[in-house]
Amino acid sequence: MTSNVLQFGTKLIPVSTTFLRTSLSYAVVNIKPIVPGHVLVCSLRPAERFKDLKSDEVADLFQCAQRVSTAVEKLYDATSVTLAVQDGPEAGQTIRHVHVHVIPRKAGDFFMNDDIYVELQKHDKPDADGTVKGLRSVRDMEEEAAKLRKIIESTSV
Amino acid sequence: MTSNVLQFGTKLIPVSTTFLRTSLSYAVVNIKPIVPGHVLVCSLRPAERFKDLKSDEVADLFQCAQRVSTAVEKLYDATSVTLAVQDGPEAGQTIRHVHVHVIPRKAGDFFMNDDIYVELQKHDKPDADGTVKGLRSVRDMEEEAAKLRKIIESTSV
Repeated sequence: MTSNVLQFGTKLIPVSTTFLRTSLSYAVVNIKPIVPGHVLVCSLRPAERFKDLKSDEVADLFQCAQRVSTAVEKLYDATSVTLAVQDGPEAGQTIRHVHVHVIPRKAGDFFMNDDIYVELQKHDKPDADGTVKGLRSVRDMEEEAAKLRKIIESTSV
Repeated sequence: MTSNVLQFGTKLIPVSTTFLRTSLSYAVVNIKPIVPGHVLVCSLRPAERFKDLKSDEVADLFQCAQRVSTAVEKLYDATSVTLAVQDGPEAGQTIRHVHVHVIPRKAGDFFMNDDIYVELQKHDKPDADGTVKGLRSVRDMEEEAAKLRKIIESTSV
């Protein structure tokens, strides 16, 4: 039986919210994106740090990130893409599982171009009451995943 | 005859300031790092956008970035690493040549963790008089490159 969840750190991700999967990596829409189309590409194996990945895992992770960046740039009518890895707690990593943030960009999307990183830093942090606000519904995430899956499939060789 | 420069967009980089080179990628110290150890990993072929890289170039670029991130984390006594690609002008790219920023991180290095990206955004922009201030000497860059080369060589398989 195929599992309908994937591991992301200590969390479980519904496969229905993913839109690309290889033998070593998967891509998933974000429960709290900082802009529409902000998605994640993760190693399938829950390695904590970038240095923990094997050579073929590194290759596959970023080959997936490349396909994903083309897809989100297209779906969200963007003209550029930010890719970022917060590798370790002092780099802002909260989920201890290697993942690449892929963020479609367009002119004027942030007041200062790199305010995006300030948002990236705080977007999944809990408020004073200990809860993370503004999380999306699974239904909403599944709809986005389906659109991205379609683009990825149409551009696959 | 081997060239003593490498292309980086429209610029030429002295090979003496590089510290890792493969058939597809190279790593170079930064003329204006935002923190000590902020270095760049570039595709050898001067492709402009991430999507322009071939599959083996993507793999090699990030396999190099992985080796480099381990080296700068070690040399600069860091505990985390930020990796970022500004892919296109709306993502802050100034040099039109695919490159990965590799930035060693430690606790308290920036007032707010992701102020690092604000610095990344403005660090190589000219002042009002049109010049970029605070550039390092080639000598200084060569010394850093030599230290990193030594670490990379000692950890190569």
